Amino acid sequence: MSRRLLAEFLGGLLLAAVVIGSGIAAQRLSPGDAGLRLLENAVATGAGLYAIILVFGPVSGAHLNPVVSLVDAWFGGIPWREAFSYAAAQTSGCVAGAVVANVLFELPPVGLATTGRATVAHGLSEVVATAGLLLVVFALTRSDRAALVPGAVAAYIGSAYFFTSSTSFANPAITVGRLFSDTFAGLSPASALLYVPAQLLGAALAVVLIHVLHPRTRERP
Amino acid sequence: MSRRLLAEFLGGLLLAAVVIGSGIAAQRLSPGDAGLRLLENAVATGAGLYAIILVFGPVSGAHLNPVVSLVDAWFGGIPWREAFSYAAAQTSGCVAGAVVANVLFELPPVGLATTGRATVAHGLSEVVATAGLLLVVFALTRSDRAALVPGAVAAYIGSAYFFTSSTSFANPAITVGRLFSDTFAGLSPASALLYVPAQLLGAALAVVLIHVLHPRTRERP
Amino acid sequence: MSRRLLAEFLGGLLLAAVVIGSGIAAQRLSPGDAGLRLLENAVATGAGLYAIILVFGPVSGAHLNPVVSLVDAWFGGIPWREAFSYAAAQTSGCVAGAVVANVLFELPPVGLATTGRATVAHGLSEVVATAGLLLVVFALTRSDRAALVPGAVAAYIGSAYFFTSSTSFANPAITVGRLFSDTFAGLSPASALLYVPAQLLGAALAVVLIHVLHPRTRERP
Amino acid sequence: MSRRLLAEFLGGLLLAAVVIGSGIAAQRLSPGDAGLRLLENAVATGAGLYAIILVFGPVSGAHLNPVVSLVDAWFGGIPWREAFSYAAAQTSGCVAGAVVANVLFELPPVGLATTGRATVAHGLSEVVATAGLLLVVFALTRSDRAALVPGAVAAYIGSAYFFTSSTSFANPAITVGRLFSDTFAGLSPASALLYVPAQLLGAALAVVLIHVLHPRTRERP
Repeated sequence: MSRRLLAEFLGGLLLAAVVIGSGIAAQRLSPGDAGLRLLENAVATGAGLYAIILVFGPVSGAHLNPVVSLVDAWFGGIPWREAFSYAAAQTSGCVAGAVVANVLFELPPVGLATTGRATVAHGLSEVVATAGLLLVVFALTRSDRAALVPGAVAAYIGSAYFFTSSTSFANPAITVGRLFSDTFAGLSPASALLYVPAQLLGAALAVVLIHVLHPRTRERP
Repeated sequence: MSRRLLAEFLGGLLLAAVVIGSGIAAQRLSPGDAGLRLLENAVATGAGLYAIILVFGPVSGAHLNPVVSLVDAWFGGIPWREAFSYAAAQTSGCVAGAVVANVLFELPPVGLATTGRATVAHGLSEVVATAGLLLVVFALTRSDRAALVPGAVAAYIGSAYFFTSSTSFANPAITVGRLFSDTFAGLSPASALLYVPAQLLGAALAVVLIHVLHPRTRERP
Repeated sequence: MSRRLLAEFLGGLLLAAVVIGSGIAAQRLSPGDAGLRLLENAVATGAGLYAIILVFGPVSGAHLNPVVSLVDAWFGGIPWREAFSYAAAQTSGCVAGAVVANVLFELPPVGLATTGRATVAHGLSEVVATAGLLLVVFALTRSDRAALVPGAVAAYIGSAYFFTSSTSFANPAITVGRLFSDTFAGLSPASALLYVPAQLLGAALAVVLIHVLHPRTRERP
Repeated sequence: MSRRLLAEFLGGLLLAAVVIGSGIAAQRLSPGDAGLRLLENAVATGAGLYAIILVFGPVSGAHLNPVVSLVDAWFGGIPWREAFSYAAAQTSGCVAGAVVANVLFELPPVGLATTGRATVAHGLSEVVATAGLLLVVFALTRSDRAALVPGAVAAYIGSAYFFTSSTSFANPAITVGRLFSDTFAGLSPASALLYVPAQLLGAALAVVLIHVLHPRTRERP
C-alpha cells in the first residue's frame, strides 16, 4: 500500500473514531437532551476533522471521502484509478475506525447498527449536505485558497450536523463505517442504501454548480 | 441571471437553510432549554456562515445581505443598480432556503411564521446588530483585511444571537426568508415590518461610523 | 475627542454590550443550569471580542482595557498621557455599553448591580486572569505576531470565564461598566473595590513576566 | 533556571490551571449533566491551550508535554538532555498549576485525587489520544506549517476529550498534575500508573507513523 493510500486509510480511521467515539461519549454522558448530544458530537467532529485534514493533507490531499475523490477525478485532479483506490482505502479506514471507537468505549469491537433514519427528508438532506461539502472543497481549491480547506470543511460539517435532518453524513466511507457501531452515531444498512445514492446525487449536483460558479480548470500542482 | 447574481441567490439559499434548518433541529432536539436551543442555532449559523462566505466570496463578494450591498454602493464599491439586483437575488435566495429547510425536516414547504417579536427593544436590537455587522465588514475591507471577513462575520453573528433580544437578524433578506417557516427561527410579518426599517436605520448609523473611523475610500480591486 | 479615543469608547461600548447583553440572554433563556449560562456567555463574549478587536485595531490598537494601555505605556508603546485618556474612554464606553445592554433587553437603562463575588479566591482569580491576558497580548506583539492578538485574546477570555472563580473580568473598564447592570453579568461595588486592585496587581506581575520571557523591546510601528 | 525552562514551567502551570480550574467550575455549575460538564471543560481547555501555546511558542517551543519533548529529541530536534529538563519543568509546572486551580476555587491547595478511571479501554484511549496528538504536532512541523500548531493542537485536544473514554490526558505532565486535585479533572494515582505507560506507548506508535507519513527530516531552525 502506498504512502498516499495509507494516509487515506489512517485519516478515515481517525475520522470514524472521532465521529463514532464522540457519539458514544455524548450518548452516555448526556442522556437527557438530544440536542446537547448532537452539539457535543458536532463540536468534537468539527474540531477533530480540522486536525485530521491538516495531518494528512500534505501526504494524500486528505480527501477522506469517496465523493471528494470522484469529483476530483472528474475535474482531472487525480486519475480515476487512483480515485477508486482512495475510496477503498477511505472506506476500510472508516470501518477500522468504527472498531477502534467501539473498543475505546468497551463495546464489542463490531456491532451492527440498528439506528434507522431513512425517509425522503433524510435522503434530500444527504443530497444537500454532500453538494454543499463539495462546493466548499472545490470552491476553495479552484480559487487558490486550499490552505483554508481544513477550517472550512470542519466548520461546514459541524454546521451540517444541525441544518439537515440526517445529521449530514455526506460521505459514503463514513456511512459504511457507521454500519458497524450499534450506537448513537451508527446507521442501519437499510438507511445506508438510501444515503449513498443520495450522496452520489449530491456530488452530481455539486459538479454542475462548481462548473458554473468556478469555471477555471484546477491545475495539478 | 449572471454568475454573480446566481452566487448571491445560492448563498442566500444556503444561509437561510442553515439558519432555519438548525433552528428546527434545535427546537425538536432540545425542548427543555431555550438557551441551549439558541446556542445550537448560533454555533451552526456561525460555522455555516463562515463556509458559505468563503464559497461565494470570489464570485460575487458574498454580500448575502441587502444592507451590505446598499452600503457598498453608497461607498462606491458597486453600482446602485447592481446593489438592487443583489438584494433581489439575496431575498429570493433566502425564501428558497426557507423552503429547503422546511422540506429537509418534513414540514410543509411553505409555512407562514407566527413567531412575533416586535417591541421597541427588538427594534433597537436590530439597529445595533446591523450597525455592528456593517462595521465589521467595512472596517476590514477598508483596511486591506478582506480575507478576515468570513471568520469575523461568522463570529460576530454567532455572538449577536445572544447579545440582542431579537437574536440579531441584521439582514433584510433573511428577515423576509424567515417569514416562510413557521418554526423556531421564523418571524411573523408584523415583526418584519419593524425589523427591516430598523436594519436600514442601523445601516445609516454604520455609514456615519465607517466614515469617521475608517475614512480611507475603498478602491475597487 | 480624537478618532483614536472614539474607537476606544465605541469598542468599550460594544464589548460591554456583548458581555452584559449575552449575560442577560443566558440568564433568561437558561434558568436551569449555571454552567450552561456561563458557556453561552463565554462563547458570545469570545466571538464578539474577536470581531470587535478586528474592527478597532487599526484605529486605536483596540486596547479596550486600561491595564493593556498602562502596560503599553510602561513599555514605551504609547505616552502615559494617552494611556490615561484611553482608560477614560474605555471606562465611559463600558458604562455606555451597560446602558445599551439594559435597554436592548427592556430593563431600566441603569441598574446598580447587586451580584457580590468578593472573596480571596475571587481576588486571586483576577490577579491570575489579568496577568495571563497581558501575557497573551504582549507576548504576541513583542514577537511580531500582532495579527494573532484578536483570536488569541478571544480564546483566552472565553477560557478564563471557566478557569477562574471570578469568571475573569481582567479589565477595570468592564468591571466599572458591570456595576451598572443588575443582572447575571453585573458586579456589586463592594466587589469592584477588590477586583480593580487585583487587576492592577496582575498587571504588575505580567510586566515582570513579559520582561523575563520576551525581553526584546517593542518598537513603535 | 533558563528562560526556556521557565517558559515550560509557566506554560505547564497555566495549562494545568486551565484544565483543572475549568473542570472544577464545570463540576460546580453543571451538576445535572456530565456531557455538558465535559463540553465546558473541553471548550475552555481548547481555547486556553491555543493562547498558551502562542505565548510560550517563541520562547521554548511550547511543548508543555514530556512526550512531545521526547519525540522531538528522538527526531533530533532538541538534545536528549534538554528533553529531560523540559519534562521536569513541565511536570513541576503542572503540579503548581493544580495547586493554583485549587486555590482559585477555595479548595485546599493540595488534594489527592480519588477519581479512578483505569480500565483497558482507558489505557487504549491514552495510546490513541497520545499518538494522534503527536501526529498533529510533527506532521505540521515537518511540513513547514508550525504556525498552525497552536490551533490544531487546541482543536485536537478539545475533540479528544470526547472521542476517548479517558477524556484524553495524552500528556504525562498533566497526568501527574491532575493527581493533586481531588476534583472533576483529577486522576487517582492507580490510574496514573496505567496512563503514563500508555502515553509512552502512544508516543512509540506515533514515531513509527511519523517516519512513514512524513519522512523528511525536520531541520533545526
